[in-house]
Amino acid sequence: MIDKQLESATATAPATVSNVAVGFDILGFPLTGLGDEVTVRRSDTPGVQIVSIEGQVEVPQDAAENTATAGLLALVEERQLSFGLEVEIKKGVPIHSGLGGSAASAVAGVMAASAVLDEPLGLPERFHYALLGEKRACGKRRGDNIAPAMLGGLILVRSMDPFDVVRIPVPHDMGTVVVHPQLKVDVREARQMLSTEIDFDDFVAQSANLAGFVAGCFRDDRPLIGRSLQDLIVEPQRAGLIPGFQAVKKSAIDGGALGCSISGAGPALFALHDFDIDPEPICEAMIAAFDEVGVEAQGLISPINGIGGHVVARNQ
Amino acid sequence: MIDKQLESATATAPATVSNVAVGFDILGFPLTGLGDEVTVRRSDTPGVQIVSIEGQVEVPQDAAENTATAGLLALVEERQLSFGLEVEIKKGVPIHSGLGGSAASAVAGVMAASAVLDEPLGLPERFHYALLGEKRACGKRRGDNIAPAMLGGLILVRSMDPFDVVRIPVPHDMGTVVVHPQLKVDVREARQMLSTEIDFDDFVAQSANLAGFVAGCFRDDRPLIGRSLQDLIVEPQRAGLIPGFQAVKKSAIDGGALGCSISGAGPALFALHDFDIDPEPICEAMIAAFDEVGVEAQGLISPINGIGGHVVARNQ
Repeated sequence: MIDKQLESATATAPATVSNVAVGFDILGFPLTGLGDEVTVRRSDTPGVQIVSIEGQVEVPQDAAENTATAGLLALVEERQLSFGLEVEIKKGVPIHSGLGGSAASAVAGVMAASAVLDEPLGLPERFHYALLGEKRACGKRRGDNIAPAMLGGLILVRSMDPFDVVRIPVPHDMGTVVVHPQLKVDVREARQMLSTEIDFDDFVAQSANLAGFVAGCFRDDRPLIGRSLQDLIVEPQRAGLIPGFQAVKKSAIDGGALGCSISGAGPALFALHDFDIDPEPICEAMIAAFDEVGVEAQGLISPINGIGGHVVARNQ
Repeated sequence: MIDKQLESATATAPATVSNVAVGFDILGFPLTGLGDEVTVRRSDTPGVQIVSIEGQVEVPQDAAENTATAGLLALVEERQLSFGLEVEIKKGVPIHSGLGGSAASAVAGVMAASAVLDEPLGLPERFHYALLGEKRACGKRRGDNIAPAMLGGLILVRSMDPFDVVRIPVPHDMGTVVVHPQLKVDVREARQMLSTEIDFDDFVAQSANLAGFVAGCFRDDRPLIGRSLQDLIVEPQRAGLIPGFQAVKKSAIDGGALGCSISGAGPALFALHDFDIDPEPICEAMIAAFDEVGVEAQGLISPINGIGGHVVARNQ
């Protein structure tokens, strides 16, 4: 039960891998063990104030610029709330990593804020404000991080307007290895560098891979997933931003991964692996390959997280 | 049982709808009630001879130019057959209709020829020779008509090299209406007119529709199929080849179809409809809309045919 007298709530939302090699701007899934936490408290001061940020010093303090709060500003205004919102942010997801840090903050912020409202937000409203948060704060137009961070699981964003998301089943025990090199990739720059035109033959081949990947997920056909998990369009354009990319990817494939590509705009890489493959050596090999080119990297081994953003603490 | 002394065999293969709005060059399904029939007879004359063609006078008589026989020429050579092949062709699928007439002939030819060999062709060889037939005779590089004409059902061609096809389940009782106007569209011209570059945003939106369509088929989610069945890339470029296209499409959608687009390179149009919609009025409305612009058209109502090319008669 939602307590209508709730004064504050804390919500968490997971890091996400978006694009997933074949679904640029339309596919994403969350990770376990990496996420952002946002506490929202009712306040007598109107508007939205960020009162503390932990974990990442470079995150904006201005509520209009921070993805955790940009959507809440619209919420306060559109709902004509009789109270303001005080916000505490704990950034767990590294920024500019390609792991959906903006979406994690936006989703956690909206989930926590919803819990302190007299009338909590429905799912479409939660999407609306979370998307607004990410869009205002980092310019991203698509919901391929927001939707999986909100819902959990592998999510297809079929349309943004109207917002239409589809859950794709994930083969049992298929896991992921994520390796995050200590490089910064600016999402806006990574997007702006993309060619605005696509070769027709690449479009056909990439479409076939996307359809094969979706069919492979539904059929629980991991070899098909592996054959399909090839990005012919965006990866070749962005790989150059990541020193050692080809070697790191090769080390994942050689280690038995079904496929490996860039997570979101990078520089993090993700690999998918079948249940009978030990992900530890894959992770170590990917980190070692980055080390070879003098880049320090952290690894994370995770299932495809079926749980999206949710409230973890309520205070009256 | 295959009779090793078989002197002749007759095979049939169905007409097919390819592209299916969202899967240009990669998706196709067969129709019932429309197909080509090919009889292949062992002959003392080496090589491949077409001895009769019924149904379409404009089909090439030269074995190297006819899709029913172009692949058989390679077969005779590569298998070093001790006998030649005499071929009778009955064209049921109108040529230049967009309904996979070339593929129907190529598949029927290969299926019939396989049956008269001492050692019949395996599936990969059947694909090989059928694809060769279609490629040599009409220049088409992809197997999105060949594969469904061979296998039956909705088929994804994930890759041409290596050849990799995936069956997509079809929602029970989902049917199709096909309307064929008396216009000629040359496949090569229809292909050459396509832009070689695609706008990036269109690529993303079309990818989302393709993934939504595949997911909708697996989930038996007809509204999702309907929302997804929109071609943003090829249909706008080719619609101008078909007088009345927008009106015909609108009449199908207004009549309750899930979606409507061009079959293959056109000029035939197909519409998909749910089991609880009567397809007759849709078909009549589409024909009437063509009539409005002075174009005569024939209609066909068909389930998505689950049966591909097969031998219908054997003679010793």
